[in-house]
Amino acid sequence: MKKVLQCGFGAMGSGMVKLLLGRKGVELVGVIDRNPQLIGKDVGDVLELGHKTGVIISDDPQKVLTEKKPDITLLATGSFVDEVFPQIKTILEAGSNCISTAEEMAYPWRLYPEKSKELDEIAKKHGVSVLGTGVNPGFVLDLLMLVMTGVCGKVDYMWAARVNDLSPFGPTVMQTQGVGTTPEQFEAGLKDGSIVGHIGFQQSIAMMAAALGLELDEIRETREPIISKTHRESKYITVEPGMVAGCRQRGYGIVNGKTVIELDHPQQINPSLENVDTGDYIKITGDVCINMANKPEIPGGLGTINMCVNTIPQVLNAKPGLVSMIDLPIPTMWSNLD
Amino acid sequence: MKKVLQCGFGAMGSGMVKLLLGRKGVELVGVIDRNPQLIGKDVGDVLELGHKTGVIISDDPQKVLTEKKPDITLLATGSFVDEVFPQIKTILEAGSNCISTAEEMAYPWRLYPEKSKELDEIAKKHGVSVLGTGVNPGFVLDLLMLVMTGVCGKVDYMWAARVNDLSPFGPTVMQTQGVGTTPEQFEAGLKDGSIVGHIGFQQSIAMMAAALGLELDEIRETREPIISKTHRESKYITVEPGMVAGCRQRGYGIVNGKTVIELDHPQQINPSLENVDTGDYIKITGDVCINMANKPEIPGGLGTINMCVNTIPQVLNAKPGLVSMIDLPIPTMWSNLD
Repeated sequence: MKKVLQCGFGAMGSGMVKLLLGRKGVELVGVIDRNPQLIGKDVGDVLELGHKTGVIISDDPQKVLTEKKPDITLLATGSFVDEVFPQIKTILEAGSNCISTAEEMAYPWRLYPEKSKELDEIAKKHGVSVLGTGVNPGFVLDLLMLVMTGVCGKVDYMWAARVNDLSPFGPTVMQTQGVGTTPEQFEAGLKDGSIVGHIGFQQSIAMMAAALGLELDEIRETREPIISKTHRESKYITVEPGMVAGCRQRGYGIVNGKTVIELDHPQQINPSLENVDTGDYIKITGDVCINMANKPEIPGGLGTINMCVNTIPQVLNAKPGLVSMIDLPIPTMWSNLD
Repeated sequence: MKKVLQCGFGAMGSGMVKLLLGRKGVELVGVIDRNPQLIGKDVGDVLELGHKTGVIISDDPQKVLTEKKPDITLLATGSFVDEVFPQIKTILEAGSNCISTAEEMAYPWRLYPEKSKELDEIAKKHGVSVLGTGVNPGFVLDLLMLVMTGVCGKVDYMWAARVNDLSPFGPTVMQTQGVGTTPEQFEAGLKDGSIVGHIGFQQSIAMMAAALGLELDEIRETREPIISKTHRESKYITVEPGMVAGCRQRGYGIVNGKTVIELDHPQQINPSLENVDTGDYIKITGDVCINMANKPEIPGGLGTINMCVNTIPQVLNAKPGLVSMIDLPIPTMWSNLD
């Protein structure tokens, strides 16, 4: 029976706990969140399970780590290395393995080599591992492409697109993707950092290059507004023709002046209104050509929840240190860890 | 620099050697084949490379293993565990890791638990690993399906189909798949074992069940003739309407009386003449649904060649013993092992 601590009890973290409670061989030993509305409550009550779990939500990770000694901690608190670095450090120093949803943790070596080295050393010192994963980065626009290169003797060019629908998401996502802005507001938002688009292309492209042994000249990224031609609306926002329905982000991995890896990720509300099929698409050209489509796309939120829980055995069995998806056996669904 | 020995120099083995010669960090130290036409010749001459390689084809694996001490041996000699078992034993006992193309080696534990145990023990004793891989089994109808379950919290049913075109293949494949027979001859061929269809469903389904933690009641397989409605012909065979254009093989992994895994593999010449699209298809139903198509299909021969060479680093770095694709980090193309 492996002991699991959940840090962060928002949409992602509470989804992971629900999934964990239905799996065998794992025991939820604690939940950490800083929301005063949740602290002191039983997880069963918060999730409306109809029964107590005996796990009381706490805001003191150090205390729970010391008392419960979890084998692994699932961390779902932020997107950026700077945010989660101190949290991961605390977790590793308590002797717990860690899986983080932070997009930048999917392959932190590129943007944060020093912090990555530090986490790697701390993890090794305490005999544990730390992984960043999710659906994107972590799966669709990196791991899945890499797996497909396994049947290739030579790769000349690889391209992937993830076309998704932002309609189910709330106000924060609308704002960070610029949905409902005018084109001018969108440009201003990119400049002042209030519109960020997708986080993860740097990590996905760097991870793929590392696995394939490509020496990148640079990773280039562009973000442009998706200007709506139609009236679109979701629960939280209305977009009129001429306004911004979302952000189209593209990333390029350039080797010897040539684009070898290209990623395209248009995120918007209601793409079907303009006859755009949502889906995950991969094309590889080389001695073997790949032309893959998965329609509709893998859901980002639920997929990330599942991926974090599914990689628990891989991280428990990994060599100590900072690891990435390319270092571990393939992720699969599992139902019993014993 | 890692030393590689190639055993078996047919279509698969010679393809692997060509690929290896273009990769960095690996050195071809020997080639074994029993064909008297090849023995004593330089690999460069046989492959018409326009230059000598210094590697002379030999029929004495024991001698080459002892003299050259390869780090890893690629074995492309047969499909069945009974055939390759003594060869793998010799390779492991010489202290070489081994990758086998034998379909039954993809997950030998199911049909040959005793022999698997023996290989595992020999490999461990000599500190080396042995893997069976390829495109099918080894990738499309097992590993790729499993990878897709990584984003699933719950899997109710998984299905995959591999629809391919046998037209490029030679007389042996035509015969073992029953192409060009009458329906009566096909039935008789199945009975007397001259028509075998696809080898690998037992292994693929057992490997998936092991990874997912499913307890199978049984693995059921069916083979039926694909009766042509049209005139079809390939280089080696002509099929008239009413005759057999190929073999449709299906496999079922049954858990608690219910089919949880279903594989469909219709192999025939010229499926496009009856408007059948070749491709690899995966559907998974669960909390996340997968609906994937890769069109056209990954080529079986070239894909297997590439997969065997691409898994070299994974096998070199694996824990000693008999391993399967589910035990190793994801396969990817690589260009330099150093």
